[in-house]
Amino acid sequence: MNKVSKIPLYLQLMDKLIMKIDQQDYTEHEKLPSERELCEIYSMSRITVRQALQELALEGYIYKLHGKGTFVAPHTINQHLVKLYSFTEEMKKLGKVPATHVLGFNEIAADERLAANMNLDPFDRVFQVIRLRFANDEPLIFETSYLPKKIFPELTKKDFMERPMYDVFYQDYQVSVSKAVENFSAISVRETEAKFLKMSTHQPCMLIKRNAFHKRELIEYTISVVRGDKFDYTVELS
Amino acid sequence: MNKVSKIPLYLQLMDKLIMKIDQQDYTEHEKLPSERELCEIYSMSRITVRQALQELALEGYIYKLHGKGTFVAPHTINQHLVKLYSFTEEMKKLGKVPATHVLGFNEIAADERLAANMNLDPFDRVFQVIRLRFANDEPLIFETSYLPKKIFPELTKKDFMERPMYDVFYQDYQVSVSKAVENFSAISVRETEAKFLKMSTHQPCMLIKRNAFHKRELIEYTISVVRGDKFDYTVELS
Repeated sequence: MNKVSKIPLYLQLMDKLIMKIDQQDYTEHEKLPSERELCEIYSMSRITVRQALQELALEGYIYKLHGKGTFVAPHTINQHLVKLYSFTEEMKKLGKVPATHVLGFNEIAADERLAANMNLDPFDRVFQVIRLRFANDEPLIFETSYLPKKIFPELTKKDFMERPMYDVFYQDYQVSVSKAVENFSAISVRETEAKFLKMSTHQPCMLIKRNAFHKRELIEYTISVVRGDKFDYTVELS
Repeated sequence: MNKVSKIPLYLQLMDKLIMKIDQQDYTEHEKLPSERELCEIYSMSRITVRQALQELALEGYIYKLHGKGTFVAPHTINQHLVKLYSFTEEMKKLGKVPATHVLGFNEIAADERLAANMNLDPFDRVFQVIRLRFANDEPLIFETSYLPKKIFPELTKKDFMERPMYDVFYQDYQVSVSKAVENFSAISVRETEAKFLKMSTHQPCMLIKRNAFHKRELIEYTISVVRGDKFDYTVELS
């Protein structure tokens, strides 16, 4: 460490540790040296080490288990926002095993707000599909989809237990998604979703509202609550 | 209200109130009727009204002031992620008055992580510019930009106090941004930024990392912490 640098010592220590994590000297879920060991390794005060660890935890590089120590967090999953993407396909590309639990399947009447969002008339029939998406057995996304019955008249819960949603659309209805508009905002996770996503309440989530279209017709409105520490999204502007 | 509908009463009440807000029957910062008044207006129980108000607060439609009541939150600002955008220009389009406070201006040596992020060598000189961005006197974004000295050798604090950053680039260095890559993640606001953004700690923020390029050269690396309740971002996929 450079003690005469203008860069605060805790930031220098963070850099060192992040480099080690990025270069996989420390791998996912590996235990880091204890605070005391880090003090010795880097000749730093306890306060500095603690501040660096706190910041690293806030930035999602590490996590603490009470009484067990500090561990390297799994890498976040980066989603490029260019083309249409499917959770199942993206996870497979990353060598992860995707899974989906169907938590709910209901036929409902669209209330005024939903109807307005979906360009339907109030009381139009809509299927509501609630799904929890996993990668390697870890819950990552809580998704609620609304699908117009007039477009997909015969949907059943079983369809979604066996196949990706867009496969159901295409195979059973010859409907493919040609365009989607996604809206991103940062929220605190709510109680219902927190439980399923194994988060503490008030941790940050990405809220994604997707409107998907077949030609010009809206065929899907999905609200996804995504663990903030697991995903980030990249877009290119020009 | 439809008491025999399958839609829970608190959701029906939320819809009613959101419609009124969207149609500007209730305008930004207007006081809503009290819980008791809402019970009377809509013939609902106190529990239902309270649940609807809680959800509306969580979703950012309303805010509570202790002892004063419940008020309509200002609308979030939606940013379309298609073309390069500038805070100043976007706020002007919305009829808001943008302002920028330069909180810090330093010349520093890039540490290893920053150098790696910016495609520089460690210890290369970099200007760090910390700015707080306002719309109508409300702080919205805490931005830390890193600009390579080799590209912008003569930058001063004064430059950023008087002109938008991209005007400085173009007018003084004939450098324009041709492409930017932005990365979005949901985080909890940290103490430093919370103070400036007038947020309580742990409220959700959007963290945006922007790499901006002139032709193929990186000219700007900016980390923005954006109030989660004030901004959302839209992208189109096809």
